[in-house]
Amino acid sequence: MLTVEQIAEMTGARIISGPSDRSVAGISSFDDAGSNHLTFAVDQGYLSRLDQSRAAAVLVPEGTSPDAASGKVLLVHTAPKIAFFKVVEFFFPTPEMTAGIHPTAVLGKNVQLGEDIVIEANVFVGDNTSIGSGTRIMANAYVGDHCRIGDGCEFKPNVTVMDRSSIGDRVTIHSGTVIGSDGYGFAQADGTHNKLIHTGHVEIGDDAEIGACTTIDRGTLGVTRIGKGVKMDNQIHIAHNVKIGDNSLVVAQVGIAGSTSIGKNVIIAGKAGISGHLTIGDNAIVGPYAGVSANVAAGEIVSGIPHMPHKTWLKVANIISRLPGMRTQLRSLERRMNKIEGKTTE
Amino acid sequence: MLTVEQIAEMTGARIISGPSDRSVAGISSFDDAGSNHLTFAVDQGYLSRLDQSRAAAVLVPEGTSPDAASGKVLLVHTAPKIAFFKVVEFFFPTPEMTAGIHPTAVLGKNVQLGEDIVIEANVFVGDNTSIGSGTRIMANAYVGDHCRIGDGCEFKPNVTVMDRSSIGDRVTIHSGTVIGSDGYGFAQADGTHNKLIHTGHVEIGDDAEIGACTTIDRGTLGVTRIGKGVKMDNQIHIAHNVKIGDNSLVVAQVGIAGSTSIGKNVIIAGKAGISGHLTIGDNAIVGPYAGVSANVAAGEIVSGIPHMPHKTWLKVANIISRLPGMRTQLRSLERRMNKIEGKTTE
Amino acid sequence: MLTVEQIAEMTGARIISGPSDRSVAGISSFDDAGSNHLTFAVDQGYLSRLDQSRAAAVLVPEGTSPDAASGKVLLVHTAPKIAFFKVVEFFFPTPEMTAGIHPTAVLGKNVQLGEDIVIEANVFVGDNTSIGSGTRIMANAYVGDHCRIGDGCEFKPNVTVMDRSSIGDRVTIHSGTVIGSDGYGFAQADGTHNKLIHTGHVEIGDDAEIGACTTIDRGTLGVTRIGKGVKMDNQIHIAHNVKIGDNSLVVAQVGIAGSTSIGKNVIIAGKAGISGHLTIGDNAIVGPYAGVSANVAAGEIVSGIPHMPHKTWLKVANIISRLPGMRTQLRSLERRMNKIEGKTTE
Repeated sequence: MLTVEQIAEMTGARIISGPSDRSVAGISSFDDAGSNHLTFAVDQGYLSRLDQSRAAAVLVPEGTSPDAASGKVLLVHTAPKIAFFKVVEFFFPTPEMTAGIHPTAVLGKNVQLGEDIVIEANVFVGDNTSIGSGTRIMANAYVGDHCRIGDGCEFKPNVTVMDRSSIGDRVTIHSGTVIGSDGYGFAQADGTHNKLIHTGHVEIGDDAEIGACTTIDRGTLGVTRIGKGVKMDNQIHIAHNVKIGDNSLVVAQVGIAGSTSIGKNVIIAGKAGISGHLTIGDNAIVGPYAGVSANVAAGEIVSGIPHMPHKTWLKVANIISRLPGMRTQLRSLERRMNKIEGKTTE
Repeated sequence: MLTVEQIAEMTGARIISGPSDRSVAGISSFDDAGSNHLTFAVDQGYLSRLDQSRAAAVLVPEGTSPDAASGKVLLVHTAPKIAFFKVVEFFFPTPEMTAGIHPTAVLGKNVQLGEDIVIEANVFVGDNTSIGSGTRIMANAYVGDHCRIGDGCEFKPNVTVMDRSSIGDRVTIHSGTVIGSDGYGFAQADGTHNKLIHTGHVEIGDDAEIGACTTIDRGTLGVTRIGKGVKMDNQIHIAHNVKIGDNSLVVAQVGIAGSTSIGKNVIIAGKAGISGHLTIGDNAIVGPYAGVSANVAAGEIVSGIPHMPHKTWLKVANIISRLPGMRTQLRSLERRMNKIEGKTTE
Repeated sequence: MLTVEQIAEMTGARIISGPSDRSVAGISSFDDAGSNHLTFAVDQGYLSRLDQSRAAAVLVPEGTSPDAASGKVLLVHTAPKIAFFKVVEFFFPTPEMTAGIHPTAVLGKNVQLGEDIVIEANVFVGDNTSIGSGTRIMANAYVGDHCRIGDGCEFKPNVTVMDRSSIGDRVTIHSGTVIGSDGYGFAQADGTHNKLIHTGHVEIGDDAEIGACTTIDRGTLGVTRIGKGVKMDNQIHIAHNVKIGDNSLVVAQVGIAGSTSIGKNVIIAGKAGISGHLTIGDNAIVGPYAGVSANVAAGEIVSGIPHMPHKTWLKVANIISRLPGMRTQLRSLERRMNKIEGKTTE
């Protein structure tokens, strides 16, 4: 239970409407909120229908008029969503972990452990691996030999981190994900495909988050590198020797082929595919389902299969379903042309 | 060993041709069947070549003529495939499970167990979780804290079910699948992406089946809900707060983005992608590879990237490879037009 | 430390430039090589800029001129990449495995083991399964009942191999991958989808390699078969009863629907999808993102959604972004035609 005044203090928000002693018992989304809940509204779509939410109090952006309140407490904040999730954390505090190593965990030789580490049931940690302070490795996860794991990481259940991976601080890896599998690299001889030894490894920067059932292959030689603050979704495939710059976003089911280099602050939308040996510049955006088969310059926005400037794709997407009509029109013009040519040559 | 008479009794089929005391020693597909096997034929493609199968007996649909038998025993049934698989179950009885908890399984505090439960080797079950009667959790699977698992479920090896998931009765989850991972939800501030706490959970209805290496993210706030009788294939990505109505089918490698709502009895074919915050109506069908970026009405059938009515897509699909010809034709018309305009303006 | 003379002996290469007693301390890629490293150059892109690599020595193809050396030792070989990776194996020798079964591994009844087997921590092996000599099953992997696993295989951590799978010799399976999950097969009755019992199994031939988080479903009846020497990448979905011929290559995120048959030496590029019940002939190539919905003849090269001859797709891909221009042109022609028709009918 919090008063809206306490919420204002906790978040730095400013009450612009309603009684500051109103109580809030929980948090909810805009449409699910009950009459004693806090919610938030970030865009005009929600702000225009504040009267439809049953919430007791709403975090809204700077510039919102108190007149919109319709009986609710309005709290103004420069970043209402971030402020809201601070309150969520109050209501859903992170459970206290008891540091320790479960008796069923198996640790190799010469494992170096920081302080306050949690290693849960049936976890395997290989030889010569170091794990930083405050890191939690959940049940049934695997960490190979010669890995360096930073401080404050969380590896969810059934994660696989193969040998020689280097993981920064505060990295979260979700379940089913595989870091450091061998890349797809073979050499043909006499009609068969010969396995090449993959001696590279994977590096993941501080504050990265990797979704579930994602695979990041090790470098064939050298490194596959995920930058600091990169956020990756589920079921993404990152091939050998790919580099992704700091703070880039990669959405679900994207595939990036070998040796491609992605800049900083790039956004790659869901299901896009990027061919190998390409360069995607800083701040570029690749649209959903896009098939990228050539370099993309910094700041460019591309979409489509094959990829093209996003503005062009918007027009193209509008035309594709009209192709049957265009074909009919073309045939009709052809016939009319034949007729006219017949006349004019008479 | 069964006689065809016993098969007729077991399935409710009617013998329309051949000796009722013929013996059947096993089951097979139409083309692989040996001379003492039962098979089935559901459509004209198979019925028209009954003479090519070596099977001793064939389950066929109502209306099949005994004249087609070509020496085989024909058994007529309203649903020959379902009847056939009843016989398959006779020949491949489910192995008896010995209820019990393997000594290497690790159970948390206050776990509530129904009767006849099988918990296999190296399974982890968290605190305050309840598991219904007759449920089997196979080796190396993980079930988190505060989960409710129904009766008669089967979790295959290496499944991950995260905390607070709610799973109905008779739900099968295949290996590698992750239920309740955090969704892809971040808030930007100062050029970095800040993790939002995900307090929601996943609910899966009775009789649902979830394929291998599929990921279903928890709600950010609130619930991600898979309806009763929903059948999902492998490698499907379901984002936070998605809802899928009862008895819908989702085929392999589909991706559904956050907060989208799918109706009942919907079919989403393989590799289709559906953007976030959309509504797909009851009984709609989304074709393979379709890229859906707007609402789809109930009963509508859509295909293509971007999606369009399926009938339109069939025409478009036929035209795309002809675009080079259309372009040539268009240029030719342009030239001819220029020439004629030259003449007519003379 | 090796001299280039030793490298020549080890690989069968021929020194065509530079001192044969030069020492090499390690291996690297072309662009990362240090001044005491060996690297390789296979195509003109690299050969034309030999002066830009700092490498001490370079493996190059037959026909390379000594004049290109720019101070480096040049070693000529018919297959420079394969020769290079022989040297890589010298510098990165496979760590010696100590044969044995970890005390936390759980083995069922009547398991038959060859010689020099490694079974790591928390592995589960089911009843009546046989494992060949020299095979290594890494930590937290699962192998079901009645499996036959050949000699010299390596199953990485968290692999799942379900009951009755048959795996040849020298097969590598990467982490998170699931072999033998039930296929997507249901029969509708009364508006619900009824589970069919899947009695088939998976067979994988000798020398196959299966990437991470890939799923290969068992046959519904009969077999799903992966041929000898097939190399599969990550996150591939192979449905029930698919057959893939020897030495075919399947790249990441491909999906192949039920009962489709792929020939020998086929290449299926990343993210392609192939519908069910199709035949793809020997030596065919399917391009990236292709959507294949009909048979592909032996030796054919196809691309696009829907698939078409690759040469056609190259033209089409070049035209799609010009559709808005074509539409404008078409409309303009229409107007001009109307005007001319007005004149000529005057």
